[in-house]
Amino acid sequence: MAIVLQGVVMAGKNAFYAQSGGVSAVINASACGVLQTARQHSQHIGKVYAGRNGIIGALTEDLIDTSVESEAAIAALKHTPGAAFGSCRYKLGSIHEHRAQYERLIEVFRAHDIGFFFYNGGGDSQDTAYKVSQIGAGLDYPLVCVGIPKTVDNDLPITDCSPGFGSAAKYIATSLREAAFDLAAMCATSTQVFALEVMGRHAGWTTAACALAAEQEGDAPHILLLPEVVFNEGRFLAKVEEAVEQYGHCVIAVSEGVKGPDGEFLSASGLKDAFGHSQLGGVAPHLAGLIRGKLRRKCHWAVPDYLQRSARHIASGTDVEQAYAVGRAAVEFAIAGRSAVMPAIRRLSDSPYRWDIIEAPLSEVANQEKLLPPDFISADGFGITEAARRYLAPLIVGETYPPFNKNGLPSYVKLQNRAASKKLTSEFAI
Amino acid sequence: MAIVLQGVVMAGKNAFYAQSGGVSAVINASACGVLQTARQHSQHIGKVYAGRNGIIGALTEDLIDTSVESEAAIAALKHTPGAAFGSCRYKLGSIHEHRAQYERLIEVFRAHDIGFFFYNGGGDSQDTAYKVSQIGAGLDYPLVCVGIPKTVDNDLPITDCSPGFGSAAKYIATSLREAAFDLAAMCATSTQVFALEVMGRHAGWTTAACALAAEQEGDAPHILLLPEVVFNEGRFLAKVEEAVEQYGHCVIAVSEGVKGPDGEFLSASGLKDAFGHSQLGGVAPHLAGLIRGKLRRKCHWAVPDYLQRSARHIASGTDVEQAYAVGRAAVEFAIAGRSAVMPAIRRLSDSPYRWDIIEAPLSEVANQEKLLPPDFISADGFGITEAARRYLAPLIVGETYPPFNKNGLPSYVKLQNRAASKKLTSEFAI
Repeated sequence: MAIVLQGVVMAGKNAFYAQSGGVSAVINASACGVLQTARQHSQHIGKVYAGRNGIIGALTEDLIDTSVESEAAIAALKHTPGAAFGSCRYKLGSIHEHRAQYERLIEVFRAHDIGFFFYNGGGDSQDTAYKVSQIGAGLDYPLVCVGIPKTVDNDLPITDCSPGFGSAAKYIATSLREAAFDLAAMCATSTQVFALEVMGRHAGWTTAACALAAEQEGDAPHILLLPEVVFNEGRFLAKVEEAVEQYGHCVIAVSEGVKGPDGEFLSASGLKDAFGHSQLGGVAPHLAGLIRGKLRRKCHWAVPDYLQRSARHIASGTDVEQAYAVGRAAVEFAIAGRSAVMPAIRRLSDSPYRWDIIEAPLSEVANQEKLLPPDFISADGFGITEAARRYLAPLIVGETYPPFNKNGLPSYVKLQNRAASKKLTSEFAI
Repeated sequence: MAIVLQGVVMAGKNAFYAQSGGVSAVINASACGVLQTARQHSQHIGKVYAGRNGIIGALTEDLIDTSVESEAAIAALKHTPGAAFGSCRYKLGSIHEHRAQYERLIEVFRAHDIGFFFYNGGGDSQDTAYKVSQIGAGLDYPLVCVGIPKTVDNDLPITDCSPGFGSAAKYIATSLREAAFDLAAMCATSTQVFALEVMGRHAGWTTAACALAAEQEGDAPHILLLPEVVFNEGRFLAKVEEAVEQYGHCVIAVSEGVKGPDGEFLSASGLKDAFGHSQLGGVAPHLAGLIRGKLRRKCHWAVPDYLQRSARHIASGTDVEQAYAVGRAAVEFAIAGRSAVMPAIRRLSDSPYRWDIIEAPLSEVANQEKLLPPDFISADGFGITEAARRYLAPLIVGETYPPFNKNGLPSYVKLQNRAASKKLTSEFAI
């Protein structure tokens, strides 16, 4: 539930904004929404400092003074992928065991007269934002904490969808459609099976979105391998054969997070990231080996990896609009003194697609993972239902290309990212 | 050298058009150029039959009657990837040993009153077109044979560049730039090295084009691994370290065709295609393993594979224009009775970029492979020179997006591809 702080107490305080976790094609559009809206409300919010490399910038007092950036540079964030201030994979520990981290945050915020905390990220990041909102009160430092949703994985709860997802979905569905045209043209004498590996460690939203590429019976993809469905080699190979016999070729969209009956990822690199998550990659080549070995069919595979979460050149118009809107709403919530909340997207209707922004309590968002619901997965487990299609379809609608320069390349902005003067003498080791 | 047939003899004859080898984002733009131009010259050319799955369609008398396609459908080819009539990996044998194949072609052409042969493909395909041009005379069947250049690998000789290349280059340079924004944002706490695997079995043109993504000192890519340069593990790893220390991260573009000092591909799947070429893939994961193992740095990799040769959504305007122009010129050459030739692109100036179309003799195009010249490769072997940049730069200029439908997906055309009635009773086994 939201904590309500008196707007009058906070007026004129500075703000802190940071980007966290894996980046997306539109997290900078949220930053644009935050910064433009804050500038429009200078009577409520002073300077906006950005954390260099996310929360780490707050802990190390490495604050970026966004006020030196031009209006044009801020506007260009709306069409620039990546994370303009640097992001991080760094999760604050529990308040009990890592109290020094939280005290340090407050020390830095106090030194820079920061009264507003905006944290732009996925489930882990909303957990951080929630913890910070709790500690401010405990340390007698009033702080308005607002989370801003972002994840290509679309696994945040409450919000109908997460900014970043629609663009990854549009990229991957478009790419799959294009590769399917390739395969259909070549399958008489060459490759008959193509496996496209899709990001999404636990939730199959992006893999499911590949199904949007199919608009008619027989269109690719012919098989989805979702992380919510246990992989069965025999059924899978039979399905591949069936598609090749029926259509001459078979296009597969496979989630990096697919697991076998033993509960192990089909292919894991063995590395773990800072959050303790396995680093995945390589399911598609694994499947290709299976198909060549067991079916004796020529198989190609692709792993777009980071390309899919940074492909701003083919971003979804809906997604860019929503990413901006949650950034703007976060500032509006903050000005209204609403803390421990996150702007969430509420769907009002599928077709025509209509949505608005509501307030979600961070306590209910943090550390929750929204998987594909069972009624979104087809009976055989290899596809999606009409309900899923109705949900997914509007999220990839609309094209909003970045400007391209005279050299034929997208013009993405690099900010000055000038550091604000330090006010503390103490160092803090990360 | 060109064979000149009397236009008057050929007038009103039908034409055969086929697509061959790996597809591209713009081979259908060449088809559009052929079909629209042929329709404009109906006094010279009757129907255009397309081979279903390339030359195989001619051998099996599986001819597609393109005259039933609407003007709108033909126009839509200009923005549709893949190969609308099906392509093939099928190389005709030598005339001496496989005379029956050539006799069969002439038999089919005679049965359908075909006097014009257009073959749209890379080096192997131009070889086929050349052989067919030679046999027509020998079998006392007048046939105007014109090759049409196409290859994402850009390795055809004489022509300044090959349609298909510019779009693959624009896709890969754009994608690399976007992924580099991702890496730059995350490298403080996560991935520091990213390896993007690029198509190009022998020629490093597409890998070289990745360098266009860098417009300022320090911009990615920091390392190119070209197939023209022998891989040296020690020098490579030292260069990766240097980049990470200097810029915080390192982006690598690696050709699938990179070979070690032993002359072996760094990673080969062991399969061979119909032309006897090794099927590659998986150099990037190989490098990632090396970087993790030897440098202890977190490394991600991507293999876009077919995505890069079918990404019509981010095609190069220059490339689409040239692809159309060579299709149109092929018909104009044919009407003028020019045989055993291929329209080639001639560069008139780098900046402003100006070009025109000239006639290249098929005898000089067939089976030649144009590699990156030594003066295009930087002294350390990890980059390109200014000369290379001047050559490459104009080829990715211009955006020409396909239309997107209301569902947010590119509208690509699928033709009816109606088979023409067979006139022969004999079958031909492929």
